[in-house]
Amino acid sequence: MTAYKAPLDDLRFALFDVLGAEPTLTALQGGEAHTRDLIDAVLEEAGKLSEQVLAPTNAPGDSEGCRFDKATLTVTTPTGFKEAFKQFADGGWTSLTNPEAYGGQALPAVLGIATTEVFQSGNLAWSLYPLLSEGACHAMEQHGEEWHRQRYMQPIVEGRWTGTMCLTEPQAGSDLGLLKTRAEPAGQDAGGHDLYKLTGTKIFISAGEHDLTENIVHLVLARLPDAPAGSRGISMFIVPKFKVNQDGSLGERNTVAAGAIEHKMGIHACSTCVMNFDGAEGYLIGKPHKGLMAMFTMMNAARLSVGVQGLALAERALQNSLNYARERLQSRALSGPAFPDKPADNLLVQPDVRRMLLTQRAFVETSRVLLLYTALQTDIESRGGDEAARSKAGELVAFLIPIAKGVVTELAQECTKEALQVYGGHGYIGENGMEQFVRDARIITLYEGTTGIQAADLLGRKILQLQGAGLKHFLQEIGAFCQQHGADESLRGFIAPLATATRNWSDLTLKLVQRVQANPEELGAAATDYLYYSGYIALAYMAARGVAAADAGAHSAAFKQAKRDTATFYFARILPRCQTHQAAMEAGVESLPGIA
Amino acid sequence: MTAYKAPLDDLRFALFDVLGAEPTLTALQGGEAHTRDLIDAVLEEAGKLSEQVLAPTNAPGDSEGCRFDKATLTVTTPTGFKEAFKQFADGGWTSLTNPEAYGGQALPAVLGIATTEVFQSGNLAWSLYPLLSEGACHAMEQHGEEWHRQRYMQPIVEGRWTGTMCLTEPQAGSDLGLLKTRAEPAGQDAGGHDLYKLTGTKIFISAGEHDLTENIVHLVLARLPDAPAGSRGISMFIVPKFKVNQDGSLGERNTVAAGAIEHKMGIHACSTCVMNFDGAEGYLIGKPHKGLMAMFTMMNAARLSVGVQGLALAERALQNSLNYARERLQSRALSGPAFPDKPADNLLVQPDVRRMLLTQRAFVETSRVLLLYTALQTDIESRGGDEAARSKAGELVAFLIPIAKGVVTELAQECTKEALQVYGGHGYIGENGMEQFVRDARIITLYEGTTGIQAADLLGRKILQLQGAGLKHFLQEIGAFCQQHGADESLRGFIAPLATATRNWSDLTLKLVQRVQANPEELGAAATDYLYYSGYIALAYMAARGVAAADAGAHSAAFKQAKRDTATFYFARILPRCQTHQAAMEAGVESLPGIA
Repeated sequence: MTAYKAPLDDLRFALFDVLGAEPTLTALQGGEAHTRDLIDAVLEEAGKLSEQVLAPTNAPGDSEGCRFDKATLTVTTPTGFKEAFKQFADGGWTSLTNPEAYGGQALPAVLGIATTEVFQSGNLAWSLYPLLSEGACHAMEQHGEEWHRQRYMQPIVEGRWTGTMCLTEPQAGSDLGLLKTRAEPAGQDAGGHDLYKLTGTKIFISAGEHDLTENIVHLVLARLPDAPAGSRGISMFIVPKFKVNQDGSLGERNTVAAGAIEHKMGIHACSTCVMNFDGAEGYLIGKPHKGLMAMFTMMNAARLSVGVQGLALAERALQNSLNYARERLQSRALSGPAFPDKPADNLLVQPDVRRMLLTQRAFVETSRVLLLYTALQTDIESRGGDEAARSKAGELVAFLIPIAKGVVTELAQECTKEALQVYGGHGYIGENGMEQFVRDARIITLYEGTTGIQAADLLGRKILQLQGAGLKHFLQEIGAFCQQHGADESLRGFIAPLATATRNWSDLTLKLVQRVQANPEELGAAATDYLYYSGYIALAYMAARGVAAADAGAHSAAFKQAKRDTATFYFARILPRCQTHQAAMEAGVESLPGIA
Repeated sequence: MTAYKAPLDDLRFALFDVLGAEPTLTALQGGEAHTRDLIDAVLEEAGKLSEQVLAPTNAPGDSEGCRFDKATLTVTTPTGFKEAFKQFADGGWTSLTNPEAYGGQALPAVLGIATTEVFQSGNLAWSLYPLLSEGACHAMEQHGEEWHRQRYMQPIVEGRWTGTMCLTEPQAGSDLGLLKTRAEPAGQDAGGHDLYKLTGTKIFISAGEHDLTENIVHLVLARLPDAPAGSRGISMFIVPKFKVNQDGSLGERNTVAAGAIEHKMGIHACSTCVMNFDGAEGYLIGKPHKGLMAMFTMMNAARLSVGVQGLALAERALQNSLNYARERLQSRALSGPAFPDKPADNLLVQPDVRRMLLTQRAFVETSRVLLLYTALQTDIESRGGDEAARSKAGELVAFLIPIAKGVVTELAQECTKEALQVYGGHGYIGENGMEQFVRDARIITLYEGTTGIQAADLLGRKILQLQGAGLKHFLQEIGAFCQQHGADESLRGFIAPLATATRNWSDLTLKLVQRVQANPEELGAAATDYLYYSGYIALAYMAARGVAAADAGAHSAAFKQAKRDTATFYFARILPRCQTHQAAMEAGVESLPGIA
């Protein structure tokens, strides 16, 4: 069993000291009540729920897994999951960030992200049930009609139902243009709404079938009869598990059902379903053939949350490997016994063990700031005071999401690996819990767009197509930070290398753009290295901001020193990775010859 | 299910074209018969056995796992394991490299390593049963008495019994000096040999209990009553599961038994036991209190084989991810459809997918040469013509083993991760088999000395204590290679960076030595980065040798081009990683501040 304590101090530090969430949030439209006190209180409650209810279900849920009954085509989730979901819903967590008009509390997205970290650390597999619902709500909120929201979204917000995203098919994964599920017009329902019948098979549907709630709302990509081929012929549909009567009560069972659940490397407690649509009734949401746009609404929110999953797993893995390194007595310090009264010194005296722990700590602390920064921009984007601020925030979000998803999920692989490694052979043993983090983490670089997809989105879409608007804002902001703190004694050693890295980032981006314009294959040759390169500099900026914020705030000397130590380690041992990625990018597509 | 085809062509290329195993092996003492024809024939047979018998048991063995019966304290291995072991023993594979005096075939160690790769690719968990036996035989061969070898080693060589290494205890892992198992003198046996009774608990004992053979010989580290504290008070004992009569027949059950088997992240089919010694009878092997030396005899051989495990897993993962990338149709090439007649292009047209595949291929091909190179040096060390050659080979082996174990096992993490990533979400699904490689691979950076232990051995012992004797030979050899090929048009682009890297390696090593002499903590701060740094240069040398050997041999143009492509990729995109490791080393121990 692994321990978990919600890192409320570091969450508060990131939100308020580093990012200035107050007064930013209170200045937003409708944000008057979103004070530090309120946010603190919500974080406290999230911490309690996660520590006391979710965290204890994590290892047992992994062992027990979900069970699929072939006769009834139903899924039973592990012991305690249903009760935990009820507590979660009763506590108002399903409605946290949703609009008040549909039963929500309209709290800031950045608070949603902060609490999502805490819940995902408690139990990642469990957290996927409410997470997928959020994406479905976003899609209905932005692309649905009023009656969609009242009938299908509000029960999700109230925690009575959950939602899914049904995208992938066996032959269509990263390339959704290949999908085949058909939607045929089928008259109207009793309320006069156009009906469609959907037929096809979807795979990898998280929370596709389960026993946590009485109904499930599937948001499904499918093709209308007159759809053009490829990704421009995809529409989105609402397909409930149980049909819903005009009065909102449950009607008869729809002809959509799970055909099987997948046996996966990890997140065993998440019901990952093959979903069969056999003329299942549904409603078009959004415009015909414009389903991909609606899908991206769900996807962008989901991608940020998946980045948070990387942070959440890394945080819990770090807590446990740090505890282990403190307590495990083995060998002596290289310069002589540090604890001569004990049979051996603890692992913390070994510089190489500190390297593994500081790697985790550096990524955890800087990723947390990056993710919350991005989430705060989504609040500004949706509720900022003026159009210019909203537009700038939107461009920053678009630019940062592939980094937040792509890089943080990859770094989580490294963090959970190092955390396990600190345990030595004991890390490989199931009951110590570290190997579950590694197995659970392995999904996050795959779903909601693989790392390669994030990289292509960053370089192809956010840099080339959108002309680097978000990058420009971000570079400008880092430049201003460097100017502001250039003379600070406390930031010596950080500002100069950060300024250099930022200039290099800008120069390299320009070179890459020219290169890709000359040969589109160069995009694929550079994208993943560009993603990492960008991520390492973005996190360096967050590390430096951490030092500045700690020094400026009323913190203990130990806290300030810890932030400085994190940044020292990061700048000395992580930021230089950019050199390797730069070399790879400069080598270009010729260094990736064809394979027969 | 995953495919596996023994890479006989690349094994032959590495052995004969790159390393010149003929005439090196035939020129060794007793090596007259070890011709290319003989070695080819043995490799063919190993390939057949692995492909037809072992490989099909890999996935089912993982699902089924080992079963422990609490009533009888016995372990049942998965279906087919016993039969596979019988075929393996009947085929003479347990006796391959052992001395003829004890039923062995005295074939070269390098051939043992080459066939071990093939068997480990077939089924890593299964391969651990014979592998642990090898270490036990080595210890008895070098440290035992004649009657030890006749009574306990020969049945292992004949495949009738297996062996184990019983080192770790709950409180003593990397630091064996903390072990507590006691050995008390207990008179003599019927043959007049001194008996000892061993009491204690060992954990993580691979193949500690199983149903493959009628007896198991444990080589156990324990303390005699008069033992000094720490690692200088450890002795080694032979403790059989069933006592052995003077005539070699099995006697009564000894009081050593499995108390449990571990539930692990991977290698589920390997019986990893808690072993309880309850006054179990055994014999001292080697001198009292000198058990650690005997242990290192086992350990060094085992470490090389664990390096090979990294190669073996990476090879099979590569084969499958390459097949998948060829067959999976998804999206279009960036510069326009490559297969316009098909619904989409295959994944190979994506430069980023080629990056993932070439990463694997580069590590697989260069690691194979490095491991076989090291194994060939062990043959020269034991059977070389003159003392100087033997001594030089011994120094090379001592230097290269931590690199071969430490770096190849770490790169196997990256290779299996990338292989899974090529599959996208399908990589996360158990039945596709890729996730098993990742889970199985995770043990190899932990057992037989963690990566940190290898790094400390490399920098602390092989560089500092042994004054870098092995490194000097290796650098000299690379220098000679660069001189020889400096003007070769076909090696342009490889020789200059290799020569530069070699010079940097030498300079950096000197600087590190001075630094560590001034402050021993610097050893721990630099060791792991030094390990990677050394490994990347050693593999670059092997990549360049691959190009030279391919060009010099009678190979197809495609084969030559493939070797050149591998090296091009390696030098452009992998070798630059040295820069990051150099920066980390130069940052020193100040960049690894204490953690409270």
